[in-house]
Formats: sequence, C-alpha cells, structure tokens
Amino acid sequence: MTSSLFLNTINGQIHDKRPLWMMRQAGRYLAEYKAVRASEPDFISFCLNPEKACEVTLQPINRFAFDAAIIFSDILMVPWALERNVRFITGTGPKLDPLEPSDMVNTALLGEVQKRTAPVGTAIELTRAKLAKEIALIGFAGAPWTVITYMIEGGSSRDFALARQWMWSYPKAFEALLELVTDATVEFLAVQAKAGADALMLFDSWASAVPAHMRDAVVIKPARTIVERLRAQGFNQPIIGFPKGIGEGLIAYADACGVDAVAIDHMTDLLWAHKNLPKGMPIQGNLDPLSLISGGELMDGAIDAILDAIQDRPHIFNLGHGITPQTPVENVERMVARVRGL
Amino acid sequence: MTSSLFLNTINGQIHDKRPLWMMRQAGRYLAEYKAVRASEPDFISFCLNPEKACEVTLQPINRFAFDAAIIFSDILMVPWALERNVRFITGTGPKLDPLEPSDMVNTALLGEVQKRTAPVGTAIELTRAKLAKEIALIGFAGAPWTVITYMIEGGSSRDFALARQWMWSYPKAFEALLELVTDATVEFLAVQAKAGADALMLFDSWASAVPAHMRDAVVIKPARTIVERLRAQGFNQPIIGFPKGIGEGLIAYADACGVDAVAIDHMTDLLWAHKNLPKGMPIQGNLDPLSLISGGELMDGAIDAILDAIQDRPHIFNLGHGITPQTPVENVERMVARVRGL
Repeated sequence: MTSSLFLNTINGQIHDKRPLWMMRQAGRYLAEYKAVRASEPDFISFCLNPEKACEVTLQPINRFAFDAAIIFSDILMVPWALERNVRFITGTGPKLDPLEPSDMVNTALLGEVQKRTAPVGTAIELTRAKLAKEIALIGFAGAPWTVITYMIEGGSSRDFALARQWMWSYPKAFEALLELVTDATVEFLAVQAKAGADALMLFDSWASAVPAHMRDAVVIKPARTIVERLRAQGFNQPIIGFPKGIGEGLIAYADACGVDAVAIDHMTDLLWAHKNLPKGMPIQGNLDPLSLISGGELMDGAIDAILDAIQDRPHIFNLGHGITPQTPVENVERMVARVRGL
Repeated sequence: MTSSLFLNTINGQIHDKRPLWMMRQAGRYLAEYKAVRASEPDFISFCLNPEKACEVTLQPINRFAFDAAIIFSDILMVPWALERNVRFITGTGPKLDPLEPSDMVNTALLGEVQKRTAPVGTAIELTRAKLAKEIALIGFAGAPWTVITYMIEGGSSRDFALARQWMWSYPKAFEALLELVTDATVEFLAVQAKAGADALMLFDSWASAVPAHMRDAVVIKPARTIVERLRAQGFNQPIIGFPKGIGEGLIAYADACGVDAVAIDHMTDLLWAHKNLPKGMPIQGNLDPLSLISGGELMDGAIDAILDAIQDRPHIFNLGHGITPQTPVENVERMVARVRGL
C-alpha cells in the first residue's frame, strides 16, 4: 500500500473516500492556465515546452489538491510525431492535411516517434519531481481510432463521415493506418511510462462513432495490442481505458482489452456499469461537465447519485468528459468539497 | 393474421423472411425524388403538399417493393405547428429562431396543432388509398427531446451544448418546453393515426446526448406519456420507439416506455440487444447506412450478421440511421435481394 489514494484505488482497494481528478483539469477555466498559454502562441510548441507543460499540469493540483495530475499534452502529438501537418487555429480547433485513401503509410516514421515526443517525457520527469509523492501523475494518448478521425477528416468533425466511410470503402488503407497509429501510440506511451508516469490513460473519445459491426477491429483490438506491447516492454503501470460513448459495448471492451480500469462517460448509467463490469475492476467517472457550469443543488444531487451508485468497487471520481472553459472555479470548489464530504 | 408481413411481424410473429424498409427511403438518393422535390422550392410547403408527399412516399415502394412506406414529412412539423419560425436553407439545413430560457411557452398554440398539421393526415389518406393492402404505412414524429434540441439551438447542432445546458441551468424552462412539445407530439401523431397510419414511429435521434442522470425525465417519461395518451384516445396502432445512440439505456427504454417495438441504431450490438430486450419484443434494424455507399462483400457480410443475430424474435430489417444521398441505387437493390434471399 502506497500513500497514494489514487494508486491504491486503481490497484483495487476500495475506499469510502474517493480519489478525485478532472479530465482537462489543466485548462481554460483557470485564469492561471490562460496566462501561461498566452505566453506561447503555438499550441504544439506549448505542449512540447517541458517547463510550461509542467507548470500548467501543476496548477489544478495547487488549487484543488486533486489526487492525480495528468500531464499537459494533446492526443494529436502522435500524428504530429508522424509528420502530419498538425496546427491549431484559434476559434476553429486543430487542422491537419487530410489523408487520402491512396496515401501510402510511411512506417519509417515510427522510428522517430520517441525522439519527436521526448519533450513530453521531459515534462513528466519535471512534473514528477515537483509533485508530492501521494499525488499520482497520469500520462496519456488518444486511442488509434480517435486519432485517425482527425488524420482523415483533417480536423474535428461533426459526424466523422469520411473516417467512417474508410472502414467500408477502403478497408485495406484503413487497416494500414490503424496499425501505424497503434504502433506509434505504443511508442508515445512508452516515452511517458519510461519518464515516470504512474498510470496511463487511453482516450477513445469518438468510440461512439464506430458501428458495432466494426467495434472489435477498430476499438477493442488496437487497445488490446497497445496494452500487451507495453506489458511486453516491462511497463506495468495501471492503464485506464476510456471508450467514450461506446454504450453497451463497454462490457466487451472491459473484458477484452486488458485495461486495468475503465473511465465512464456521463451518458452511461453508472449503476448498470457497476452491475455488469468485471468484479473488482476500478471505475472512473462520470459527472456531466455541464452540471459544473450551473453548480448548485442539481450538481450536488448528481454528485451524490454517483457516490451512491458505486459501493463495493474501487471508484475514482471524475467527469464524464473534459471540463468546459466557461466553468466557474467556485463550482469546482463546491464539487471537490462535496466529493470529499467536507 | 393479416396479409402484411410488416404488421404481422410487429404484432409479434416470427418469420424467417424479414419485412424490410429503410429510414429516409423517400429521399435524395432517388432521382425521381429529386425531380418532385425540385418542383417545390420550400421544404415546409413540400411536406404540407399532400399530393407531392404521397407521390414521394410511394416512389421507393414502386422501385423496391419494400414492406412498409413511411409518410414523407419532417420531425420539425411540430415546432412549425407551434409557430416557431422553421425554414430550411439549402446546404445548411433547418433554421429556427432559437428559444431563450426566458421565453414563455404559449400553450394556447396546442389547440392549433391538429389543424396546422392536417395536410400530413391528408397525405396519409391519399397514400393509404393508393398502397397495396399488404404494404404498411407508417406515421412518425420526432421525440420531444430531439425536437427541443432544434428549438433551443436554432437548427442542427454538433454537440447540443445549449439544449443540454438548459437541463442543468434552466430546469423549469426546460421542463415546460418538454411538456409543451410532448403534448403537441400527441396531437400530431393523433392526426396521423386518425388518417389511417398502420403504425407509428417516434424518432429520438439525439437520445445519445442525454446524460444518464437525466434519461428518465428527458427520454423515457415523454415517450411513455405519448404512448399512454394515444392509447387513451383509442389509437391502438403499434408504436416503434427509436432512441438513437442510447446505448445500454435501450433496455430501460424498452421496459418502461410502453412502445411495442424498438428500432436499433448501427452502433448497438444486435446480439446484445436480442439477449437483453424483453422476450418477444420486435426489433427493427440495424445496417450501417455507410455500408450501402460502398456495397460489395463487406455490406453483404454486415447484412448476414444482422440476419444471423436475430433468431426466435420478430425482426424488421432496416438501417441504423437514414440512408445517405450519395448511396448508389444498385447497392439498395443488392441489399434488398440479399435480405430476401434472392
């Protein structure tokens, strides 16, 4: 037993007091984040600046004493490392030169991924050195399907129509791209594990868009490959899988991927998840981030429902998706106090 | 036992030969649809023209001999009937003057809904008279939550952030609007039932966006109210519920809404649904519409997987979402032949 409530929980202990952190906790709802962010106009350069990444990673810990920090970085680090032209445009989000089905995948770039993402490792080393030992540090990557949607669509998408069409119309090109990104994701997570991340998280933010007919091949198999390769390389940090919006597919995902814990979005009924997930598997989640915009008694009730739903199972309190920029900080304070029973 | 394979199936009979139709089967993938559509520049006027609505409703029946026709209309008929300023802009979709939380709901408008939507009833009468008696005619409406998203957002939305925020920030205004639209939906479906629709369908296309914490109040309760009120008015047509993207919530929905059958989107594993839904409840679905764009063996395999998944339960073959405009007609023909074992 370590002194870390987060690590003890993710390793299977059940605590009445729940460890607590928030997805996107280092983000635009914090004035101190915006101040640092403004000092580096280019978002990729910001992610690759170990000192600044460390600084913003620590901000929410200093303010709210969360039980875990998550390294400030982005799921588009992998396409960037694969030399896709990733840039962030204020107000519109990420842009990439979209891939065509006829584009050949250049597997030679895999050899460069660790070198190109090394600054994220340095940021983890810096942050781990500054964090109190009871606070866990989480490294992360996007799951291959989610990352591929950006590479095919050329940015964010409303319905992922192009990426989804590849599955049916260009199955060989799709499979080759999925394999490349899977391999690159192993490299990127290995950098973070080697640098001292205490846990790893795999964000499949758009798992919701994968038809059930393709789910094994597109969501579950790549996650399992990533977990197995990391284990084979000797990295034994707990791994949290987050197949956002996968619905009833959560159970197959939890059974088959080899992840140690699952994060659950706020669309999923926590009581159902608790009843159907493997006994003892830690659950992370799942407050609706929009409840934090209004706060008040409706938010309190939603928090209590989450705490009540999960008994006799390790539980890490979190949101069901990233916190939004317009969240008032006092509502985060209110949430923290309520979860901690203060 | 009627002569209608569709009605016999939705009434609980199990047939090895599956009845078959497609969501949005009267649509832009058909040249003959585009020709009629071009004759009426305004989309609302088109929906409210009984002769033209009848004509396009019959087109896919004439071409593919589907087992059911669905009246050509739109889920935004209800806000239109409630005097919201609904218009369709080519290339961008529907636009409405967005509601503000402070806007008072005018319940006096409810008395006008049947009169304003009467042309949809006339279209159903015309179509029913022209359809062969073994082909069922389906009437439909959007479910209240889905309709409300358009009324609050002012049109289509990527993430329904405004409509979702109302649930947390303006719960009283949200509830009043939900009730108004629920009442209006009963009126609109009653028009269609009275006119001779053989079955009714309730499209909750954006059920995916409702947090689990709110699902009972926002998705399930309004559907149950609509079913109960129609039954109380003596309309006994079978009702199909389609809570698209509800994931694991499908089971609670099927248990609690009083619908006779459920339509299932292509994100949901049909084997799971078959295993967990109430014994004997008919299932409709769930081929990925994108598989019809490429066709070929991948589509064939997906069709076979659906036919194989549902044994010992009434099953209506359909897509998991509307057919897309870019679908080649020959792929629809191929699907029809395969489902019918030709």
